[in-house]
Amino acid sequence: MDLLRVDTIDAASGKLEDHCGSIMPRTETVNLYGSIDRVLAQNIISNENIPPYRRSIMDGYAVRSRDLGAAGDMVPSFLKISGEVLLGTDSSDLVLEPGHCIYVPTGGFVPDGADAVVMVEYCEPFGSGMLAVSKSASAGENIVQVGEDVAKGDLLLPKGRRLRPQDIGVLAAAGVTEVPVFVPWRVTVISTGDELVSPEEMPGPGQIRDINSYTIAARSAAEGLNVVKTVSLRDDETVIAAVLEEAKAESDVIVMSGGSSQGKKDMTAELIEKAADCGVLTHGIAAKPGKPTITGFDKNSGTLFIGLPGHPAAAIIVFEQLLIRLWRSMTAQSPEITIKAVVKTNIPSAPGRRTFQLVTLKDGDVPEAVPVFARSGMISPVSLADGFFEMEENREGVKDGDIVEVHLWK
Amino acid sequence: MDLLRVDTIDAASGKLEDHCGSIMPRTETVNLYGSIDRVLAQNIISNENIPPYRRSIMDGYAVRSRDLGAAGDMVPSFLKISGEVLLGTDSSDLVLEPGHCIYVPTGGFVPDGADAVVMVEYCEPFGSGMLAVSKSASAGENIVQVGEDVAKGDLLLPKGRRLRPQDIGVLAAAGVTEVPVFVPWRVTVISTGDELVSPEEMPGPGQIRDINSYTIAARSAAEGLNVVKTVSLRDDETVIAAVLEEAKAESDVIVMSGGSSQGKKDMTAELIEKAADCGVLTHGIAAKPGKPTITGFDKNSGTLFIGLPGHPAAAIIVFEQLLIRLWRSMTAQSPEITIKAVVKTNIPSAPGRRTFQLVTLKDGDVPEAVPVFARSGMISPVSLADGFFEMEENREGVKDGDIVEVHLWK
Repeated sequence: MDLLRVDTIDAASGKLEDHCGSIMPRTETVNLYGSIDRVLAQNIISNENIPPYRRSIMDGYAVRSRDLGAAGDMVPSFLKISGEVLLGTDSSDLVLEPGHCIYVPTGGFVPDGADAVVMVEYCEPFGSGMLAVSKSASAGENIVQVGEDVAKGDLLLPKGRRLRPQDIGVLAAAGVTEVPVFVPWRVTVISTGDELVSPEEMPGPGQIRDINSYTIAARSAAEGLNVVKTVSLRDDETVIAAVLEEAKAESDVIVMSGGSSQGKKDMTAELIEKAADCGVLTHGIAAKPGKPTITGFDKNSGTLFIGLPGHPAAAIIVFEQLLIRLWRSMTAQSPEITIKAVVKTNIPSAPGRRTFQLVTLKDGDVPEAVPVFARSGMISPVSLADGFFEMEENREGVKDGDIVEVHLWK
Repeated sequence: MDLLRVDTIDAASGKLEDHCGSIMPRTETVNLYGSIDRVLAQNIISNENIPPYRRSIMDGYAVRSRDLGAAGDMVPSFLKISGEVLLGTDSSDLVLEPGHCIYVPTGGFVPDGADAVVMVEYCEPFGSGMLAVSKSASAGENIVQVGEDVAKGDLLLPKGRRLRPQDIGVLAAAGVTEVPVFVPWRVTVISTGDELVSPEEMPGPGQIRDINSYTIAARSAAEGLNVVKTVSLRDDETVIAAVLEEAKAESDVIVMSGGSSQGKKDMTAELIEKAADCGVLTHGIAAKPGKPTITGFDKNSGTLFIGLPGHPAAAIIVFEQLLIRLWRSMTAQSPEITIKAVVKTNIPSAPGRRTFQLVTLKDGDVPEAVPVFARSGMISPVSLADGFFEMEENREGVKDGDIVEVHLWK
């Protein structure tokens, strides 16, 4: 068994993506009300015009603009009031005759024959059903045309959109109440280690509380993935192998989080090699932090394996880089919005390795990315940081004044 | 009843905040696993040192640095291997004697007497239990000191932090499994209008699908608020008044979303005036969009009322500015991170009114904020936009080249 397949992050991602062809996220249809934060599985095309009728954007009077001529404060035009549009009532048989006007509330139907709406502020009822209008109007004024918001056949929302509140609004407006979305990957998180105790326990000498399974499960949930199980196991190969077999049947992704010692890494690699029919794909990535990362794939069950580094900062960064990015790529999501920030100090990179630097952001004309240094195994700097930036494998660090792209923590 | 209390956004917010003293969000304790996305109700101080013992960050040998002298490739130092630290096992009685070394895996306990760990790569067992070390070490090398990650008494996480995955990790590490968080406000969303039909229905002439109750409910949920009810009602004052009375008993916030016509605004104001013992606080805000906004407060039940504009863009922006900001302020949350972007065109503001301009972001050395213009009542531009920027009441628009702060949609 070759356990030394050190890849760059991009190569490791590429291998996962190649194998993932067979586990393209499935799609399902959910109700509009349950679609928030879900990822659209196809382009949504509008079947309707919005608005479906010409709509007034003001409380006012629907008029023919030519009837008003050069009406103004000094020389008003006079029109005959021939009706009123009521919201919620079918006014579609109302037709505006020349020389007439019809009252229309905000959002109301603009009757045929009218080509403008004059705000009530410029109108004064004048007795005998007449209206004095002290302003001229141009054609189309204060009217939203049929389909001006969304035309029938328009792209309403693109495949890959993670639905936000206002997207729900657009779908509601267009009457799309059955929403095609991707089925989130089912994720099992397995932490292993004789030294691990649960957060409720007081760690004795040589023990440590399990951190990574909580951060990884929470991060998965925050991304909308489906965490089916989180288990903590002793370093017993037989037991772990049995749990992996069981998890294969009910997971798209199995995340293993163990220690970073050589013995632990070897055991994780051997377990993945046995459990995954395509074996270990990557053993070690050229990243800092994140080197002791292992990936594998089981084609038969369609399960992706990822063995994370033991250090909390490394674990969350690698999970973000490999798994979250893969999910976003497979579901056609747009790249996240990053923040350009200036560094005001020299920060070294690890030669030949993709380097991830934790930072906090400090406000300024250009925001400043202030480095947060996390020694191996430390968790508090990860929580202190607003996010991180990347330095490419061939980049020799950043210098005072360089601009970097900060990825915000989710 | 004075129905004309037009306020600036800040004045309207200030009035709400003044009255909200009596509905300071309550606090509760939740389990660590359920605390993701909740807002911390108090500073969390660590009761423990992390790590609780000196920890090695490498697989290596614990040594006394002075025993290695100037050890190097050519002239190794020789130490006697006197033991091994096992993860998960109590090794606290191991003491390193002069001239000895003890194997320690990554994350393992560093025995008393040792002051450095030398990576295995520089060590070679040499027969008869001896180790050749081809590198010197400085005191403290490869050791995380007791409390170096988090010291007992350190601020672990500040009040007001909305808990992210890595914050869950910090809490897990420190054994904080009962987490004090704010109880989210209970929000009732009431949309009113004879013209409204549900998204499932095909709007007839004069009808329109209800949008705002969906966006507002979704936005509330995205903020972690507790949407207890979403109801759509006809324009029947008696019915609405009865629903308001009932909602007061079970809500901290009642959001009313009606049309933007004068009649609708008057009715909403009258309903709030009757339902809220402190009456209408603000009737109209100097904002564009967002003018027809009404707020009120009922001290007896501790319920805040907000009547939103009918236009979808206005409704979501006003909800964000008044309610979401208030919630964040009352729960001591940090200001959100905004994105500085350049505008490459002149954009007018509405004189005397706070103006909100929808934009998309275009990547560049400095990102460009490209304006998205939404005519009244249109929803698709709101969904197209990545966010918005604000122009202060006294600002005469922005000019080509100006830098603005973009708030990203949630």
